[in-house]
Amino acid sequence: MEGPIVKYSMVILATARWAYRPRGRPDPEACYPVRPERQRLSLASLLLLECRASWFGVNFMSLDARPRGFAARVNDIEPFRVVEVLERATQLSAAGVDVVHMAAGEPDFATAAPIIEAGRAALARGETQYSQAAGIPQLREALSQHYAERYGLEVPPARIMVTPGASGALLLIAALLMNPGDGMLMTDPGYPCNRHFMRLVEGQGQLVPVGAASRYQLSGALVDAHWQPNTIGAMVASPANPTGTALSRAELTALSAAVRARGGHLLVDEIYHGLCYDFDAPSVLEVDPDAFVINSFSKYFGMTGWRLGWLVAPEAAVAEMEKMAQNFFISMSTMAQHAALAGFEPQTLEILEERRAIFRQRRDFLLPAVQSLGFDVPCQPEGAFYIYADASRFTQDSQAFCLSLLEQHGVALTPGLDFGHARANEHLRFSYTTGMDRLEAAVERLSRVLS
Amino acid sequence: MEGPIVKYSMVILATARWAYRPRGRPDPEACYPVRPERQRLSLASLLLLECRASWFGVNFMSLDARPRGFAARVNDIEPFRVVEVLERATQLSAAGVDVVHMAAGEPDFATAAPIIEAGRAALARGETQYSQAAGIPQLREALSQHYAERYGLEVPPARIMVTPGASGALLLIAALLMNPGDGMLMTDPGYPCNRHFMRLVEGQGQLVPVGAASRYQLSGALVDAHWQPNTIGAMVASPANPTGTALSRAELTALSAAVRARGGHLLVDEIYHGLCYDFDAPSVLEVDPDAFVINSFSKYFGMTGWRLGWLVAPEAAVAEMEKMAQNFFISMSTMAQHAALAGFEPQTLEILEERRAIFRQRRDFLLPAVQSLGFDVPCQPEGAFYIYADASRFTQDSQAFCLSLLEQHGVALTPGLDFGHARANEHLRFSYTTGMDRLEAAVERLSRVLS
Repeated sequence: MEGPIVKYSMVILATARWAYRPRGRPDPEACYPVRPERQRLSLASLLLLECRASWFGVNFMSLDARPRGFAARVNDIEPFRVVEVLERATQLSAAGVDVVHMAAGEPDFATAAPIIEAGRAALARGETQYSQAAGIPQLREALSQHYAERYGLEVPPARIMVTPGASGALLLIAALLMNPGDGMLMTDPGYPCNRHFMRLVEGQGQLVPVGAASRYQLSGALVDAHWQPNTIGAMVASPANPTGTALSRAELTALSAAVRARGGHLLVDEIYHGLCYDFDAPSVLEVDPDAFVINSFSKYFGMTGWRLGWLVAPEAAVAEMEKMAQNFFISMSTMAQHAALAGFEPQTLEILEERRAIFRQRRDFLLPAVQSLGFDVPCQPEGAFYIYADASRFTQDSQAFCLSLLEQHGVALTPGLDFGHARANEHLRFSYTTGMDRLEAAVERLSRVLS
Repeated sequence: MEGPIVKYSMVILATARWAYRPRGRPDPEACYPVRPERQRLSLASLLLLECRASWFGVNFMSLDARPRGFAARVNDIEPFRVVEVLERATQLSAAGVDVVHMAAGEPDFATAAPIIEAGRAALARGETQYSQAAGIPQLREALSQHYAERYGLEVPPARIMVTPGASGALLLIAALLMNPGDGMLMTDPGYPCNRHFMRLVEGQGQLVPVGAASRYQLSGALVDAHWQPNTIGAMVASPANPTGTALSRAELTALSAAVRARGGHLLVDEIYHGLCYDFDAPSVLEVDPDAFVINSFSKYFGMTGWRLGWLVAPEAAVAEMEKMAQNFFISMSTMAQHAALAGFEPQTLEILEERRAIFRQRRDFLLPAVQSLGFDVPCQPEGAFYIYADASRFTQDSQAFCLSLLEQHGVALTPGLDFGHARANEHLRFSYTTGMDRLEAAVERLSRVLS
């Protein structure tokens, strides 16, 4: 522990920062000024103000009129930069411009026909009412079976919860684990919503800059090096968005050991499982039965617009999260769950495996092509449908670069800023969620510009 | 402001409470004890611990190993008591017992056929991918039109967001408005999830016990009487769950004035609009364009299992919430939104109005019947599909009473505890979400027991 004087100064500083923090974009309609008392507060009072305790149930402050404003978290939650690209790409396409769409984070295939048919049948049967907050029993059972068949793992249905997308799983896990001020280690670059879910519940994502040395993943050594006093766990994705790198069983074991040694929680996003092209990514559950797994029907099962995911957790955690799901979701889409059951049927799996082969073929074309254009891709993207490319040879402002490639050459890519801060301005993400002919067209256009 | 010494003592007390607070149900797998350093902490250190600052981005504490545990909020979020009743009712029904189901909070009708058909058609067209985070433009436009036709209000689509159920709207509004420790006034009894959404983001629902004197609603006088230093707004529902009482335009105006005078936000849950039997409940937007409105396709439109709601807010608030919706939801169910468009067609509205007439008929039968059984229902339930009955003549433990009525007489009701604490043990909720013949059977059974 550092010296108490230093700490005390930090408290004063933090308190002052808090007292004068931005309160979100002001409401233009607001006409209720901060009361003058507020401005007369001494530092000592500020310290007391600081010590307001939400868990205590009362607040010591005497501010009985507040300006209408937004909560501080609103400033910390960032929009998706890619939306600007996507909207402009849609505009251009609508205006007749031939745009190659490589910015979206979803498969270009519509949901497989047997799943759609199962959804239509569920609607025809009138499956339109609420269902269980943890998911319909048949689907939890099917997921348990999935772990048995795909991973040789015994995961009872009681440890599995269906959620409204992987987003719902992230919300429940953040709500379960994060006290205010708690931190969760995560990679930069990584899926940006992860840290925003932590922020939502007044925790924080603690970004660890990662690069080729750790294949853009956390390792035991990185966990040790970046663990803070307030860190309560670490989160990884395998395969990862945006880099596509996956963790081996040995890497997961080392990571789990490092987090366990700190008494922390390990969260693994496995939403791109099934879309791995060099080996089948192992589940963290093979090496750590206490880890929290986040998964989804969006990617491999191609059900993005149905909003269905799942999580696996220790049984006691699921019981607590079920209570929260009752309160925060009531139910998932009932017909979507009945449709998802068809995802495990052999005829569907055949279609999904064909699509996996198509994604692999696209990666095998696009990766060397992107590299020969002059982008650096130091690690093999083993899964997902992304290539995260170092564009520093061409730009120090990838957002502007993306918009210019779109405007002038009709190629829509995602700027690195959507995935964090670590050299984000020098990176782009290519999604191979469009056909081979379109990928070829994009590479040809880019080769004319960049050579 | 009270004396600093009193405050300081409160801080110390709060700090000690925090330091020794329960950390949620312990994980049985956990084997990482709290480090001994923790136990040697003096009160002074505890005060420093208390002053940990999530917005500051670092934490001053030196606890670098934590026991695996759950966040404090987990203890504060309560399960639905009715689930026990519902599960037992389902068991009994499955075992051949004739149960009258009056516990559920959803219409007994399946979704209207034109909406189901529109959903099936959307699936057939392949509407299975992500859509805009704020909702598809056609649906926001249709909702804008709905406000024009139904209320004579001009509400531009830019002020309307489609959400994953009213639950999603509550999440976004809580995230937008509540800083840690902030409070939101709400009625007790009321919909329990409201306070849990506030707790999720480290705010608090401030329950105001309400009764017949205010028709179970907040009033300007109650707002004035219960406003706390940390209160930032007030929330009401009209018509309300569980009491069915609705607010008139004059009552909404008074409420809005009281909240505005405090510089607070007014939130109105209008999810039972369209299901009002004595008059059409006015929207708060008729008297306060800055109010936040929560609404849903679940109740009047009968789309519970589709998970679709909406909110109306000032335009600047919608822009901020859209950013959060990108992060927390990505998208709503795409086919559900296309299906919901059919909810506004004349043939659908005809069906929905027929159902409204059926609900009214049920209420007109059940209300006097329940009163003549000896339950006190002091205020006319003007809408929704609930009767909140004072059962103090029969019980001081409505949870046990509900279970015994179910076990012994096959009538499933909801215990008052699901709606708050104020005399909750003496109240029950009857849902008239079953046919007239079943309601008659329930009344007959109850008359045999209770007379």
